[in-house]
Amino acid sequence: MMAKSVSEDQLFIGIDGGGTKCRATIYSVKQGVLGTGLGGPANPLHGLERTLESIMVSTQLALRDAGLPLETVHQLYAGLGLAGVNLPSLYDKIMEWDHPFKQMFLTTDLHTACIGAHEGSDGAVIITGTGSCGFSCVNGRTTNFGGHGFALGDKGSGAWMGLEAIKAALLNLDGLGPSTSLTRVITEHFSAENAMGIVEQMSGQPSSSYAKLARYVFDAANNGDAVATAIVQDGADYVSKLAHRLLENKPPRLSMIGGLAEPLNKWLDTEIAKRVEAPIQPPEMGAVYFAQQSVLEQNQEVAL
Amino acid sequence: MMAKSVSEDQLFIGIDGGGTKCRATIYSVKQGVLGTGLGGPANPLHGLERTLESIMVSTQLALRDAGLPLETVHQLYAGLGLAGVNLPSLYDKIMEWDHPFKQMFLTTDLHTACIGAHEGSDGAVIITGTGSCGFSCVNGRTTNFGGHGFALGDKGSGAWMGLEAIKAALLNLDGLGPSTSLTRVITEHFSAENAMGIVEQMSGQPSSSYAKLARYVFDAANNGDAVATAIVQDGADYVSKLAHRLLENKPPRLSMIGGLAEPLNKWLDTEIAKRVEAPIQPPEMGAVYFAQQSVLEQNQEVAL
Repeated sequence: MMAKSVSEDQLFIGIDGGGTKCRATIYSVKQGVLGTGLGGPANPLHGLERTLESIMVSTQLALRDAGLPLETVHQLYAGLGLAGVNLPSLYDKIMEWDHPFKQMFLTTDLHTACIGAHEGSDGAVIITGTGSCGFSCVNGRTTNFGGHGFALGDKGSGAWMGLEAIKAALLNLDGLGPSTSLTRVITEHFSAENAMGIVEQMSGQPSSSYAKLARYVFDAANNGDAVATAIVQDGADYVSKLAHRLLENKPPRLSMIGGLAEPLNKWLDTEIAKRVEAPIQPPEMGAVYFAQQSVLEQNQEVAL
Repeated sequence: MMAKSVSEDQLFIGIDGGGTKCRATIYSVKQGVLGTGLGGPANPLHGLERTLESIMVSTQLALRDAGLPLETVHQLYAGLGLAGVNLPSLYDKIMEWDHPFKQMFLTTDLHTACIGAHEGSDGAVIITGTGSCGFSCVNGRTTNFGGHGFALGDKGSGAWMGLEAIKAALLNLDGLGPSTSLTRVITEHFSAENAMGIVEQMSGQPSSSYAKLARYVFDAANNGDAVATAIVQDGADYVSKLAHRLLENKPPRLSMIGGLAEPLNKWLDTEIAKRVEAPIQPPEMGAVYFAQQSVLEQNQEVAL
């Protein structure tokens, strides 16, 4: 019954790719959410093949969850939010993919997160998880700040906090910086006898390995550790600046998303902390709205 | 004639491996330097196979330069100074190499640089080129500080300065930091229209690509640019701290080595700048002395 009724309706799939997971949601305008699926890593900057595979896994799981036959994939209007596709070369590569959908619309994960957070309306988001960045969409104009990736940027993110914590621990082990509860807990974390023990363990590690240390920094800062407080405050000051910059675009709403949104809140400018509102929908629903808006615009263009 | 006379003498080869070049010097106690050779990159952290190949190329070129037949390689006592061999796993891998020398003695590039700078005597060195680190050898006890590699450490190095310059340019392009002569010259260097243009070009680049930007930072700082001055002073303060830490070990001499040694000098603590003396011999001669000392210690052990 369901399969028949949805085939008369337009079917959408919203896909939110991330560094560790890929989430897919199948949505019908008449019936709402029909099913969801969860796949593996889908950050094309870390591997295109794996990203496309994770997209297909999450899609198939969502179809199964919706009780729809796998061939229904050809009827789906897909909205994809993926990291890094603001790089034209990467955008083109993914658009060249021989995808199984009826149509595919691609944008950045920031864009779909923003659309979701404000349920399709204008607004701004700051994402602080492994990385950090700001995005706003106001009167059809999108702007983004930060998000330059680990080491070059992403200040105030989990990876940045982990990196700063390791730097402080290494300075201490060299006798060039103070020993505090933070430097001790980091040194213990690595069971390292000396600086090289830490360097060896972090060699070639991805930003997510650094981000795992962020909780030590917040714990120590919340207990008044001077080194940790300086790191968290420096990161929070950057995030507050990012928020002020976004507010220049006059977004009606501002949300913060990601694992650091909650612990960072009390360290932000009071003015910014007051402005932050909870996201209404998750990024994968933002990707559904993005596909809907894209189909709508396309139909309007045809009508003109 | 020479081949005969040196065969009665002990022959040494000193090898200094680096990220871009490998230098070899053949040395006889009776006759001094017999020949030198220059090979390709020899940083085992960036590839073991290539390092061993560069060592062999520089060895063969040095033998040819000395007018010695290639088989003489089996008579050479080799001293090798290589980056990263303070990591036990890397040290063991290289010692397992089926090398052609009569005997091979391995230590870090820092150690051989220090031995060379002070002509086999005790002393300390600070190396500031692509990376940065400090090393001292006093009464048979070696200590090293810093040298934790790009992004984690290497403050005050060329790569660190390039990274900080790019961060400043990205902050400016996001409207979150000032526009100065430095941020402008960096943005022009990349012919980038926006922040992502710079991020895309630096993606996956090695630390040497960042180090190439260091000259812009010094030029701007010497012209009074506020952002560049803050970067150079921050880096120089770290190097001064490193020097004070090394002087705690009471080395009779302190040298600075590497491309940034000269431009950094005027930014150091006056006390440190006064203490810095020119290196007496290059690192590859340090590697020769290291091999000589190792053979001597070995003979003493046998005699005991």
